[in-house]
Amino acid sequence: MSDIRTVTVLGTGVLGSQIAYQAAYSGFAVTAYDINDAAIEAAAKRFAGLAETYKAEVAGAADEKADAALRNLTLTSTLADAVADADIVIEAVPENLEIKRDTYAKLAELAPAKTIFATNSSTLLPSDMVGFTGRPERFLAMHFANRIWVHNIAEVMGTPATDPAVVQTVLEFGAEIGMVPVEIKKEKAGYLLNSLLVPFLSAAGELLVDGIAEPVDIDNTWRISTGAPMGPFQIYDMVGLTTAYNVSANGGPKQREFAALIKERYIDQGKLGMSTGEGFYTYPAK
Amino acid sequence: MSDIRTVTVLGTGVLGSQIAYQAAYSGFAVTAYDINDAAIEAAAKRFAGLAETYKAEVAGAADEKADAALRNLTLTSTLADAVADADIVIEAVPENLEIKRDTYAKLAELAPAKTIFATNSSTLLPSDMVGFTGRPERFLAMHFANRIWVHNIAEVMGTPATDPAVVQTVLEFGAEIGMVPVEIKKEKAGYLLNSLLVPFLSAAGELLVDGIAEPVDIDNTWRISTGAPMGPFQIYDMVGLTTAYNVSANGGPKQREFAALIKERYIDQGKLGMSTGEGFYTYPAK
Repeated sequence: MSDIRTVTVLGTGVLGSQIAYQAAYSGFAVTAYDINDAAIEAAAKRFAGLAETYKAEVAGAADEKADAALRNLTLTSTLADAVADADIVIEAVPENLEIKRDTYAKLAELAPAKTIFATNSSTLLPSDMVGFTGRPERFLAMHFANRIWVHNIAEVMGTPATDPAVVQTVLEFGAEIGMVPVEIKKEKAGYLLNSLLVPFLSAAGELLVDGIAEPVDIDNTWRISTGAPMGPFQIYDMVGLTTAYNVSANGGPKQREFAALIKERYIDQGKLGMSTGEGFYTYPAK
Repeated sequence: MSDIRTVTVLGTGVLGSQIAYQAAYSGFAVTAYDINDAAIEAAAKRFAGLAETYKAEVAGAADEKADAALRNLTLTSTLADAVADADIVIEAVPENLEIKRDTYAKLAELAPAKTIFATNSSTLLPSDMVGFTGRPERFLAMHFANRIWVHNIAEVMGTPATDPAVVQTVLEFGAEIGMVPVEIKKEKAGYLLNSLLVPFLSAAGELLVDGIAEPVDIDNTWRISTGAPMGPFQIYDMVGLTTAYNVSANGGPKQREFAALIKERYIDQGKLGMSTGEGFYTYPAK
């Protein structure tokens, strides 16, 4: 068992609110911080919505457990209060280096020496931020997936300066909040998931650009042959074509061709994937 | 509806026997050819085994349908008889260019002009064989997956010389034998499946070689994040580490490092994956 008892989550966006709720659902005392009253009000709504989602989708959650989780959550817009007694702070603020820097500079002053700092950043490496933290040995990444109650994975990745005992504590804590904890032993951009997903999606994009086959045929082949629930073009639509464009536009020649194709055929027509109801596929109206 | 009525399958190995049985199960009159009496006897056993498997695993197969399929199958070791009235010949002989050449040279003489020739080769392109067939416009690849009754995909891929009407006929025939037919519009080594699988598996191998994470952690991340039934190292064990070695040894520097790792840690110890009970994982004895 880890020695973590009190959890603070900074940022109550889509993923921050899920992390906070899941930790509260697992019995931890959780403080959720956001920057002002409007953000706190929005967070309270998100948490209430998550309680309903858990009741519908998580076995056992309907038996009072989803509502009990709400009682384990404290909301505040005062950072000093939020972190005063935190064993771990999970940072899920916007993916912007300036905001991260400001956040860690304040945290370094306000949090007690015992507090572990964990970033949920998807796009920055912990090494990009460790210099702001004032406690390199107690800082690492703990990376969650959207729809945390289904995709319950926590990728834990330190910097060379992270104390191995802190990595172990965070891995144990991950299991305690219902995640399958995964240790990443060296820093890797994209963690494990994107390190597999990007080459896979790129290969699919290349088949399309080269005129080998149509998206539906490529997806059918992958799904039927491997039993996976989604093919690569369904994943593109789920991730969103703007993100797909941004990743591909920074790749090799074939990837840049694919980026141009996505832009011309879809993005320029306002077709951004599932979120807009159309991308490689058409989706029913919400 | 295609105009195919009579089907001949050449070669009754693992996949050849599945293709023949599946076509018979779908109501076609199927002739299965193999080279001698011993091979024919082995084929009869395979077909009987497939009937039992279908009864256990395919909805509706237990109602006489699996046994009826056996009555649609004719076995012969006389090639002239096998192909005398075939609308389509599906060639599933060993993956050896000499054997393919011999087979097509004989077929070109023995089969009537109407017969479509379809190769199930995984590793050769139809262009590698078209010169032996004597009928380039009626020759293409029709590629099936192992456990055809579950992974019911048929990748159809012509050469530049294939008549588009023949491609359409074979796509329709694919649907008629219960496959999801997929058109590959230009020749592509590895068809669609391996064009996606190889970069995906390579990325996983690279994570291991680089010491980023352990196989079980990489697999957990992929399975939990995407909902896929298997992670990349489980797929390696299923495909077999000898095949994984052969593919990786012909790749880039990281892939060759991965090939060396597989050889040293597994192949040299007789651990070849699921087939031997041990690879990246250990499997229960059969």
